[in-house]
Amino acid sequence: MSSTVEYDNQVVTRGDLKYQGKAKQVYLTNNSEILWVHYMDQATALNGKVHEDIPEKGRLNSAISHILFQYLTRHGIENHYLTAISETDELDLALDIIPIEVVTRNYASGHFVSKFDATSMQKLNPIVQEFYYKSDALDDPFMNDSQILALGYATEIELEKLRNYAQKVNQLLKSLFDEIKINLIDFKLEFGKNALGELILADELSPDNMRLVDQKTGKSLDKDVFRQHSGDVTIGYRDVLSRLENLEK
Amino acid sequence: MSSTVEYDNQVVTRGDLKYQGKAKQVYLTNNSEILWVHYMDQATALNGKVHEDIPEKGRLNSAISHILFQYLTRHGIENHYLTAISETDELDLALDIIPIEVVTRNYASGHFVSKFDATSMQKLNPIVQEFYYKSDALDDPFMNDSQILALGYATEIELEKLRNYAQKVNQLLKSLFDEIKINLIDFKLEFGKNALGELILADELSPDNMRLVDQKTGKSLDKDVFRQHSGDVTIGYRDVLSRLENLEK
Repeated sequence: MSSTVEYDNQVVTRGDLKYQGKAKQVYLTNNSEILWVHYMDQATALNGKVHEDIPEKGRLNSAISHILFQYLTRHGIENHYLTAISETDELDLALDIIPIEVVTRNYASGHFVSKFDATSMQKLNPIVQEFYYKSDALDDPFMNDSQILALGYATEIELEKLRNYAQKVNQLLKSLFDEIKINLIDFKLEFGKNALGELILADELSPDNMRLVDQKTGKSLDKDVFRQHSGDVTIGYRDVLSRLENLEK
Repeated sequence: MSSTVEYDNQVVTRGDLKYQGKAKQVYLTNNSEILWVHYMDQATALNGKVHEDIPEKGRLNSAISHILFQYLTRHGIENHYLTAISETDELDLALDIIPIEVVTRNYASGHFVSKFDATSMQKLNPIVQEFYYKSDALDDPFMNDSQILALGYATEIELEKLRNYAQKVNQLLKSLFDEIKINLIDFKLEFGKNALGELILADELSPDNMRLVDQKTGKSLDKDVFRQHSGDVTIGYRDVLSRLENLEK
């Protein structure tokens, strides 16, 4: 595609690759406040050790993410999404990403089950919130509040804001997915600060970062299908997207 | 030694082995409210995978633990210690041990350094408190509050009490060790419930469960000497005991 688009009466030109994620490329633009994000047709597992090309995955994730970010915006949740510029590309607000990932769990799944001897898919009450320190070298360690505060990776006020932010996003996404007969099992959020130092939701909102299970069949509609080599991951992603699109009509 | 002692005008008789810890044997007695604890001359590391006989270690740990429990009692901290009955044996209150260990860290050391890229011996502010779920099968996993609550391993009120309890113990032990020119780096506490359901400090308070460093030389006076095969572990333990005994005089 063209490396130039118009947005908000300005010409935005794609610049240097800033960061290559697991399934995303993030480019700088001629506007320091705007990033150009490309969703790739690939998936990785085990922190990048397993890697596969998956046609169409970029388009599906991009479309799902756009619908979810727009839904959150309509419900008062500020986020970095600006606009889609193609089937696989979007413009985002450039943020100073903070090094804490927030995982929210409504049901037990994945390593939560094996680490703590929980029952798979048991409903968690209260919901579980976990902070992870983003560090490839340290393998994104799980940390509690006092550890994060003592090492200065975030402040107490920031942790409280992250917790509240994630709780609100969880309420909204849970009720949206419930309307399309899907259970939101767990999901990961990332945040950044804007020029004013305000925390704003970033990253993507797709089945790469959340577990989604069909309420009737119990089938995985997310990246677990890829992690467990149990079939074509895009079948579930396509299903999620078409249910979301039908809901929007 | 004899398997019968007098305590509080009753005869207490040692019964069946209830539990064999890493360096302790815990026996039932003829009184269901009293346990008979024997400190052994041994040490283990890596959750029991490494094991060694260390003459005198039982007597040293027992003596240090008695002094520290008596000190805490004098300062209003309820605990399970009843009385010493020999150089290596004591009577404790029988408690229903809760499955959460509480680790307090004043300075970064041990796996806290490697896991989070902290600087060894950096002062932690605020102090770090960590909960671990006691489970040999799961290798005592580190957990945050919401995980513990969701899985029902403790209640919110209990976690708050554990946090406050550990904070008070930390203040008292820190200032005691400071008087004998030792820095209290970190330590682990265990708790149990009495017949009334009250949380009470249990386990032992010895250099097996805490890191102690000489303020002048920076030398380890604790089990790290054993973990790191850097010499005779009892030299440090003897040093700690003699400084505590001199203080008591």
